Amino acid sequence: MKIVTFSHYKDVDEKEIKDSVAIVIDLLRATSVMIWAISNGAEKIIPVESIEEAKLFKSVEDAFLIGGERGGLKIEGFDLDNSPFSYKKEIVLGRTIVMTTTNGTRALKRAAMAKRIFLGSFINAQKTAEYILKEALKNDIQKITIVCAGTEEKFTLEDILCAGYFVDMFKNGLGVVEIDDLSLASFELYKKFENDPHKILKYSYHYNRLKQLGFEKDLEFCLRKDFVDCICEYKNLVVEKVLVDV
Amino acid sequence: MKIVTFSHYKDVDEKEIKDSVAIVIDLLRATSVMIWAISNGAEKIIPVESIEEAKLFKSVEDAFLIGGERGGLKIEGFDLDNSPFSYKKEIVLGRTIVMTTTNGTRALKRAAMAKRIFLGSFINAQKTAEYILKEALKNDIQKITIVCAGTEEKFTLEDILCAGYFVDMFKNGLGVVEIDDLSLASFELYKKFENDPHKILKYSYHYNRLKQLGFEKDLEFCLRKDFVDCICEYKNLVVEKVLVDV
Repeated sequence: MKIVTFSHYKDVDEKEIKDSVAIVIDLLRATSVMIWAISNGAEKIIPVESIEEAKLFKSVEDAFLIGGERGGLKIEGFDLDNSPFSYKKEIVLGRTIVMTTTNGTRALKRAAMAKRIFLGSFINAQKTAEYILKEALKNDIQKITIVCAGTEEKFTLEDILCAGYFVDMFKNGLGVVEIDDLSLASFELYKKFENDPHKILKYSYHYNRLKQLGFEKDLEFCLRKDFVDCICEYKNLVVEKVLVDV
Repeated sequence: MKIVTFSHYKDVDEKEIKDSVAIVIDLLRATSVMIWAISNGAEKIIPVESIEEAKLFKSVEDAFLIGGERGGLKIEGFDLDNSPFSYKKEIVLGRTIVMTTTNGTRALKRAAMAKRIFLGSFINAQKTAEYILKEALKNDIQKITIVCAGTEEKFTLEDILCAGYFVDMFKNGLGVVEIDDLSLASFELYKKFENDPHKILKYSYHYNRLKQLGFEKDLEFCLRKDFVDCICEYKNLVVEKVLVDV
């Protein structure tokens, strides 16, 4: 088994991703928010790249909620921003949400060539990793790719730390595993700050920007590990909950 | 002062690099070899991108030595390979060397837009960092960029560790410093393996490939810190020794 990590969505190598199971991570905050919305009962999420596309969906079906951000903030005329606290059960239950964010939705589109695509975040990492391992082994898939969304097409530390958590779990769950240099670096960084990611993230770019915008609670939320059971898959351009036989 | 790191030469952002002093690192082995050749008295090095270009130079001036690698190995018809042990004083003293390597020479070309460009390696990092700091402060340059050459256009751990050593020295030598996420990650990774980089590099891709090719001595050589005093600058398409007033 091979694990390959990409530091931002623009860096994704199509040849490398196409025979893999992919995990897309935009920890702060797109994938965390989508997972939380689905966990709170949203029926599905349609990630789109532009504000116009989101509004078009809304004009066709008024029952859809439209959410997302530009520059970290709510988009004018949208129902919801990009904070997990906006995607409460009483708001999202049974609803379809159309979302557009700066990096996360683009990363999902970029991963579209993979065999299967899952959403990753600290909040549901363990369940997701377990499921991916089971599915990969069952279907003899020999590669897992981790697509970090990044910020402004750049290496972004919080996504890399979360990638490192996945690498850690995959290393433990597999026998012989070949990991590329970025997976190795992610793993080592994660292990160094495993017990307190804020300790390093307080010096990082995007974390600080969100802090300055007043989203401290969102940072706490997105960095808490494994309090969500729900596994989310991106399939046929839609994010849905994976139904798992227990 | 701002420090920005790029994980491979293809990732270099021209807008970001143009007002900076750049350090180009291809630790295994291009920049280490060039620095060692200059330190052993080579007059200058002309980095070129193709084998044909190198041969053209040789056809024009037979006194030139041509060196470099493809796939880590010596190029047919070339005088020298890409091992520091080939660039002995008795061979390179007073000579001009034309070099072509897979990643290193491309990274130098890619950095050409920077205000000044220095070659970086563990073997001369401290002297180079001190000089860059002095020059940047003297000329009121507000940005240092670190261009890792990478391998096959990918994040490469040994270059990142060396970048982290430079970040460490710059952090110590400056007052307030703004560092981007990759500089921060490089710094943390470097600090974790500061005393024994082999401990992590033995799991990394390019290090292992060179080991399999029988270049274990080269790995030891390129990972030894600060036994070379010479500072090398890439200027007007040529690498030369910087003359420093003491």
